[in-house]
Amino acid sequence: MPKIDQYRSHFTAYLESKSVVKEPLNLYEPMSYILHLGGKRLRPVLTLMTTDIFGVDYKKAMDAALAIEVFHNFSLVHDDIMDGAPLRRGMQTVHEKWDVNTGILSGDAMLIYSYTLLESYPDSSYKELMHLFSKTALEVCEGQQYDVDFETRDNVSIPEYLLMIQYKTAVLVGAAMKMGAIIAEQPKPIQEAIYNFGKYLGIAFQLQDDYLDAFGDPKTFGKQVGGDIMVNKKTYLYLKALELGNSIQKQELEHLFSIKPVDTSHKVATVKELYAETGAVVHTLKEIERYTQKAFSLLDELPIEQSKKEMLAQFGTSLMKREV
Amino acid sequence: MPKIDQYRSHFTAYLESKSVVKEPLNLYEPMSYILHLGGKRLRPVLTLMTTDIFGVDYKKAMDAALAIEVFHNFSLVHDDIMDGAPLRRGMQTVHEKWDVNTGILSGDAMLIYSYTLLESYPDSSYKELMHLFSKTALEVCEGQQYDVDFETRDNVSIPEYLLMIQYKTAVLVGAAMKMGAIIAEQPKPIQEAIYNFGKYLGIAFQLQDDYLDAFGDPKTFGKQVGGDIMVNKKTYLYLKALELGNSIQKQELEHLFSIKPVDTSHKVATVKELYAETGAVVHTLKEIERYTQKAFSLLDELPIEQSKKEMLAQFGTSLMKREV
Repeated sequence: MPKIDQYRSHFTAYLESKSVVKEPLNLYEPMSYILHLGGKRLRPVLTLMTTDIFGVDYKKAMDAALAIEVFHNFSLVHDDIMDGAPLRRGMQTVHEKWDVNTGILSGDAMLIYSYTLLESYPDSSYKELMHLFSKTALEVCEGQQYDVDFETRDNVSIPEYLLMIQYKTAVLVGAAMKMGAIIAEQPKPIQEAIYNFGKYLGIAFQLQDDYLDAFGDPKTFGKQVGGDIMVNKKTYLYLKALELGNSIQKQELEHLFSIKPVDTSHKVATVKELYAETGAVVHTLKEIERYTQKAFSLLDELPIEQSKKEMLAQFGTSLMKREV
Repeated sequence: MPKIDQYRSHFTAYLESKSVVKEPLNLYEPMSYILHLGGKRLRPVLTLMTTDIFGVDYKKAMDAALAIEVFHNFSLVHDDIMDGAPLRRGMQTVHEKWDVNTGILSGDAMLIYSYTLLESYPDSSYKELMHLFSKTALEVCEGQQYDVDFETRDNVSIPEYLLMIQYKTAVLVGAAMKMGAIIAEQPKPIQEAIYNFGKYLGIAFQLQDDYLDAFGDPKTFGKQVGGDIMVNKKTYLYLKALELGNSIQKQELEHLFSIKPVDTSHKVATVKELYAETGAVVHTLKEIERYTQKAFSLLDELPIEQSKKEMLAQFGTSLMKREV
């Protein structure tokens, strides 16, 4: 999609233009490092796209798009510390390249910097943007906390899991789009529709991420297929298999998620069979489709040209096909 | 000072009223824990006092005061992780009572929460408050980064040290007061005067903290006297002693700051002698007085009654005497 490429290249150029490494270097170099590791810039692209579809110059949304991207990268830096992750996009994580203290402090500075980026907006939209930004940021923290808590809990329910991914991942996608709508001065119901479009798409995306982590094509998925199973991560597939499976399947699955064998191939294969046999796979694919359709149905509420609804739908579809 | 006690008790009551521990508990309990460890609440008291001296109901400044206090406590939680500190106000630090990940994440949530507290202000002052808050927050991060950097540098200059304590400590005191002036809708020059009053007083306070850490009365200082010397912390006294000392004194001091003996009493005593003999002690006391007077001289610029200037001066004096 050429339009998407245009948003992305303009955003990247803007990110470059705003990137100044200053003293103290140990605070600002890690910030520049993580922001330049690349990535698909999905969230800022969505902010720009949303402003554009409402007929407002998308360059007006550049600072909001950057705020979203800086915030997202702050959360990656702190999450990577919490997960003890050595790599991010194939490169060393900040706490690996520098140290944990540098990761904590430069992450803090990124969070604060993301707030300052919104100061360029006029009073009329500034407070709305800030309120949404803070609300979303707190939810992202809550989502991360639930994710951490779930590691040591053995009674996580499906609704709890859905709330976790909604907070940890989906609300930021919704907020990225809603900020575009606020900048385009759209009325509240439109803002809400676009927010929910992003939120439902974010949930669908994350459920699909769970699915692809087990059943994706190793050539295209980007992460190690089977990774979640290896580290006993309670994904949607796992929770659904426990719910749908008979007592023998349930027992086997719980056993497999209590061990960490050196050779993981047998474990991964058996868990995948259980995911299929219990019906968890079929159910998960249905849920992905349901959330995607839930998102797309909101497009009807938007007072924009059909061609623009199609752009949003096409982007959503590409996203789910992992093509953008 | 009965007025100070009144600000403090109203602030504490407000803090209580806003304190709701909700789910996820592991995110919000540490927040409540650190905010209830007590402390003198100097920064929020200064915000309330500043609004009051300009003739505006100080209750209007309650949310700003709380934002400053929550931000300050966020910085304590993250600094304690970075310093590996086990205790804070005689109680376990958050990362000790829970773990490092909980400290990082609940700290992040506190930083975001502090921003949301300012949303109660009208558009006319909201953006000014937010701009000041973010600017100050970034400077506090920069100050902390300089402090970390200085640990491994052996060529820290006095101006660099003064900039570090200005950023790490003093700007938040200045901002706490300036927020009170913004809420009281004072013109910019007045806001600046009150900001600088707080900033200079903050620098004087921190220099005095360096002094008391070596020469304070163990009964009243609150921290372990000699603590900075034991951990080879490059304080103002140390840097000034290196500057003023002859080559033998300099060599001895540098040697003592390269070792960590089990029995620290001889080392602490010798370093204190060197601080005195080189003239660093006298110079430091003069600098504390100079910054205090620099703060007090700004009171002349304020268009407020003499009795109110006296309240500010009295508070400053009590602060330097560690009586509040």
